[in-house]
Amino acid sequence: MMRNFKVTVAYDGTNYHGFQKQRNTGLATIQGILEDKLSRLAGQPVKVTGAGRTDAGVHARGQVINFKVRGWTIPADRIPCALNRVLPPDIVAVDAREADGDFHARFMARSKTYSYTIFNNRLPSPFYRLYSYHVSRSLDLHAMQAAAGLLTGEHDFKAFQAAGSSVKNTVRNLYSCQVTFGEFIRIYFKADGFLYKMVRNIVGTLLEAGYGKIEPGDVLSILNSGDRARAGPTAPAHGLCLETVEYDHGII
Amino acid sequence: MMRNFKVTVAYDGTNYHGFQKQRNTGLATIQGILEDKLSRLAGQPVKVTGAGRTDAGVHARGQVINFKVRGWTIPADRIPCALNRVLPPDIVAVDAREADGDFHARFMARSKTYSYTIFNNRLPSPFYRLYSYHVSRSLDLHAMQAAAGLLTGEHDFKAFQAAGSSVKNTVRNLYSCQVTFGEFIRIYFKADGFLYKMVRNIVGTLLEAGYGKIEPGDVLSILNSGDRARAGPTAPAHGLCLETVEYDHGII
Repeated sequence: MMRNFKVTVAYDGTNYHGFQKQRNTGLATIQGILEDKLSRLAGQPVKVTGAGRTDAGVHARGQVINFKVRGWTIPADRIPCALNRVLPPDIVAVDAREADGDFHARFMARSKTYSYTIFNNRLPSPFYRLYSYHVSRSLDLHAMQAAAGLLTGEHDFKAFQAAGSSVKNTVRNLYSCQVTFGEFIRIYFKADGFLYKMVRNIVGTLLEAGYGKIEPGDVLSILNSGDRARAGPTAPAHGLCLETVEYDHGII
Repeated sequence: MMRNFKVTVAYDGTNYHGFQKQRNTGLATIQGILEDKLSRLAGQPVKVTGAGRTDAGVHARGQVINFKVRGWTIPADRIPCALNRVLPPDIVAVDAREADGDFHARFMARSKTYSYTIFNNRLPSPFYRLYSYHVSRSLDLHAMQAAAGLLTGEHDFKAFQAAGSSVKNTVRNLYSCQVTFGEFIRIYFKADGFLYKMVRNIVGTLLEAGYGKIEPGDVLSILNSGDRARAGPTAPAHGLCLETVEYDHGII
């Protein structure tokens, strides 16, 4: 019998060339490792579908994958333990459930939430360096919050898409964009979808507002211009983390 | 003119073979990197003295070093910036002061404080794996606290010294041993000195109390036995961090 599993995984992306498998390159990827380990456990070739194709160096606390296997009799709730015994310590399976046969981790995702972590301190930290972007200049958090608030809603986010992308429809609904602060400045983004490097380009632009280089209201004209050159630089990958993937109720 | 600098450094010990330089091995050490970078900056061979010789994989938030240079005119407070520009990102100079000519980071240290971090959770975390010891079994924190309290004071800590050590005087004054908990269980140790692997061996023993394998009071008979074989196993290096080094008032 064919079974379809939905598994939530957390990973430290530092040592990987992104989520997506890169054929014939020999580069380690999250998908490549997961397929390798699951194929061994299930005794058959397993193809993994991920909800989000995180880039090299990007982390995840709640990436969702699904994969189909035939005749593997393991109870779903035993999968995390079985998998964690063979996975490297920077990839951890945190949850597993049996899903409907038509569940697809990417196509059925309603929204995704990413966080971007900034360590705003005079000196860098050797302990946070892999999981946050160190900014030593002082930041106007209220300007960043005001700018972030202007970006929520359904907009054409072309200005925040990586230059050279060829996606046709660049309209996305940014449900929320919240700047929180404590030991870290953490910006949460929830949207129905994200253009390539959209979060990191928005962060680079919010930082310009934080530095006082632009006014918070300028993000609207940048957004409306559709011009990547007007937005800020791409913030580095290691501050980014895929927090959760949201599905409709009823889809476990 | 000969100047003597006291510099506080933080480091992620993951990629180093401990603090102490290992001649002719080609292995990266904290002392080796610091001496190399300081020698280049000061334009003369610089010999670094560290307060604590942390082992491979052990971290530091407040390691103290001193070094003497002749004719280097840099203001002390510019040293962290100058050094951080050339240090790898896992070693950070956090403070620098000019000290008296006779200041010696190790010999003049009155006490040191180490922390040991335990991540007590059913599942491991890919983000905490380098900076904490993952324990999935449930722990009796009150038993650990009770056992820790019994170890404070001046005792012969021979039972907690690494087997094969040849130090003559194994009496140390453990000023405090506190088990705190929140997202992590963190055990702080402050003492006038530490025997080799003493903290990690005490942690291994406190964990036995946490598992219920021994009674809290048993740590006293273990202590009094002077027998390493009766204490618990050595907890792994990556949970350990040298927090601060304390000097007499007046010694900056």
